[in-house]
Amino acid sequence: MPAKNPDLHGNAPDKSDVALLLIDVINDLEFPEGDQLLQHAVPMAERIARLKDQAERAGVPVIYVNDNFGRWRSNFNAQVEHCLQDGMRGRPIAERLRPGEGDYFVLKPKHSGFYSTTLDILLEYFGAKTLVLTGMAANICVLFTANDAYMRDFHLVVPADCVASNSEEENRHALEQMRKVLKADVRPSDELRLEELGRRR
Amino acid sequence: MPAKNPDLHGNAPDKSDVALLLIDVINDLEFPEGDQLLQHAVPMAERIARLKDQAERAGVPVIYVNDNFGRWRSNFNAQVEHCLQDGMRGRPIAERLRPGEGDYFVLKPKHSGFYSTTLDILLEYFGAKTLVLTGMAANICVLFTANDAYMRDFHLVVPADCVASNSEEENRHALEQMRKVLKADVRPSDELRLEELGRRR
Amino acid sequence: MPAKNPDLHGNAPDKSDVALLLIDVINDLEFPEGDQLLQHAVPMAERIARLKDQAERAGVPVIYVNDNFGRWRSNFNAQVEHCLQDGMRGRPIAERLRPGEGDYFVLKPKHSGFYSTTLDILLEYFGAKTLVLTGMAANICVLFTANDAYMRDFHLVVPADCVASNSEEENRHALEQMRKVLKADVRPSDELRLEELGRRR
Amino acid sequence: MPAKNPDLHGNAPDKSDVALLLIDVINDLEFPEGDQLLQHAVPMAERIARLKDQAERAGVPVIYVNDNFGRWRSNFNAQVEHCLQDGMRGRPIAERLRPGEGDYFVLKPKHSGFYSTTLDILLEYFGAKTLVLTGMAANICVLFTANDAYMRDFHLVVPADCVASNSEEENRHALEQMRKVLKADVRPSDELRLEELGRRR
Repeated sequence: MPAKNPDLHGNAPDKSDVALLLIDVINDLEFPEGDQLLQHAVPMAERIARLKDQAERAGVPVIYVNDNFGRWRSNFNAQVEHCLQDGMRGRPIAERLRPGEGDYFVLKPKHSGFYSTTLDILLEYFGAKTLVLTGMAANICVLFTANDAYMRDFHLVVPADCVASNSEEENRHALEQMRKVLKADVRPSDELRLEELGRRR
Repeated sequence: MPAKNPDLHGNAPDKSDVALLLIDVINDLEFPEGDQLLQHAVPMAERIARLKDQAERAGVPVIYVNDNFGRWRSNFNAQVEHCLQDGMRGRPIAERLRPGEGDYFVLKPKHSGFYSTTLDILLEYFGAKTLVLTGMAANICVLFTANDAYMRDFHLVVPADCVASNSEEENRHALEQMRKVLKADVRPSDELRLEELGRRR
Repeated sequence: MPAKNPDLHGNAPDKSDVALLLIDVINDLEFPEGDQLLQHAVPMAERIARLKDQAERAGVPVIYVNDNFGRWRSNFNAQVEHCLQDGMRGRPIAERLRPGEGDYFVLKPKHSGFYSTTLDILLEYFGAKTLVLTGMAANICVLFTANDAYMRDFHLVVPADCVASNSEEENRHALEQMRKVLKADVRPSDELRLEELGRRR
Repeated sequence: MPAKNPDLHGNAPDKSDVALLLIDVINDLEFPEGDQLLQHAVPMAERIARLKDQAERAGVPVIYVNDNFGRWRSNFNAQVEHCLQDGMRGRPIAERLRPGEGDYFVLKPKHSGFYSTTLDILLEYFGAKTLVLTGMAANICVLFTANDAYMRDFHLVVPADCVASNSEEENRHALEQMRKVLKADVRPSDELRLEELGRRR
């Protein structure tokens, strides 16, 4: 097999200064606090969906960064199907944010999207400098991913209305931590213009 | 979303001292030297298939560690289907080594199975200490993966008849390097008893 | 040069279930908020020093995990000397926590002690399962390191009186985050018995 | 402590397209095959020293990437002193290649200079695209480091007369592997102009 650098083994992704990450939005929410989280996640999903439309119009790549519920045996599509089943608590979110053909996905084994995954290298091939982080939970997987992104010198945008946590207090503290320590831009999504984020830098 | 340690976000894999890795066997071989590689890869696939049967009987997990030809958008099944299409050069190998429901897979962006992938952590959760490496090309992706495994203190088994390269000379040198520098056991596959590899340690 | 696995290139460290980490305690504090931090750091240093004495008696390894102010050209001793100079704001802390001959050190380029350093592999060779994290700032480098430790399945102990931040509120929020999300034991240091932490598991 | 991105915690290194790596040249060679290696290492050291002079004149940073014989307790200077002691087999090499004030160093726990070290991030801050690899042994630590550099898309230069192995055959095979698989430029050092390597790209 020929050495296939410098593209990603022959499979170079798009080039883009900005990338939109959807963190753990494909989740059945079938755990004790899932009900609490759901009520914050439904309006969140609506706003992420609009941001995703905007990303597609602007040519900004969309990456699903998601827990792998398939035990490293099945694929992401199977997880999406699982969450879309009748009676699953996480179904309304999975329906609103169903991945499309053009979307990228990275399955993560732990909390941060960067830990033991290909995210790092995928973003490097995009040439991405700015990451827009959305999803749940703000104070766990979003925060862990944001910390790792900050150490890698990404400029962070975390629209306050596109992340959700079990409680509003936890959400507020997580946003405050990202704003203050990670210098994240936390303005609400309707004030964001994705196509300008790249140019600004 | 609750913190889900210490299992892999709720998805603990099997426990096993030994794991069998199939490296880049799902490949269309549609590149200039593909023809050369094919003639060595066909007999290799036959022997890997028998080793895989043995692994299944012995309860040893099988992990496909494979290039991602899907640009991080499609899944491994789609790659398998691609290679199984009429006229694909790599079809006989993909047919013989088609992944089953119980198999694990790890998509790699570069040559080593450990670089920017989940392999490390998956093996840690297995509790694996010994890796049986098979696949192609011996002097590129198998060797890179073997080097990384050696630095992580795995005991290496690379059955000489279960790896292939473009030329026999390259194959021989790669095996020699793995035997000498990486202390790999390179005995042919019919002398291997997978269920004993774990116990020996 | 011979292959030198499985010890760390001939240099195996101690074996211990528990390790005590001192994060960024060797720091000149010569930055705008350094004054604020200093007033919390002085009593912190006193308690860490006692914990370090306890660690030495219990045979628990002590690891300085510290920013590298030497531009990757000088060594940790030079940094210690720098902080011990007359008039340096961080001097009282460096004096109280001056590293000894038996201490380990890991220089980190970024906030987390695990990012692009040897910490991971050093702890693996110790066989450490439980980490006692101390130092500053609780809401930045200690928290980043704690997150990374949690993803690696370490049991965390963060004695509330052995970490400091610019403000008490930030310190409290960081401790709360580590207690709740990372399941850290945050009891004060005088209630800790290091020699029992290992045995408990 | 303030967040200190995007420089390396306040300590940005030089900017340079090219970096010169000296791999495991500070070594006492006190192991069974050390005698064999020494006879190849002495002329190698002479040529590396000239290349290092050239690097200094051209403003190309020099990085010592070296095994840590200090058990993560002492520093690189102590290792240099150890190798300079009377009667040490590796003394002539350490004398010829003694690190200077302006040199960088990265201590590695395993064979590859990239594994669990800060090398990756240091090179990123330099902006380095081309690495000149020198040192020993060509078929172990130099090769492992070269493989990892290649996966990270560095352009590789490995001057054939600036690496050494236990035997000439091993050296030749390692160079051949780097030339063929890793596309390394292996021309001898007196044909190299470091200041042109950067500009060429």
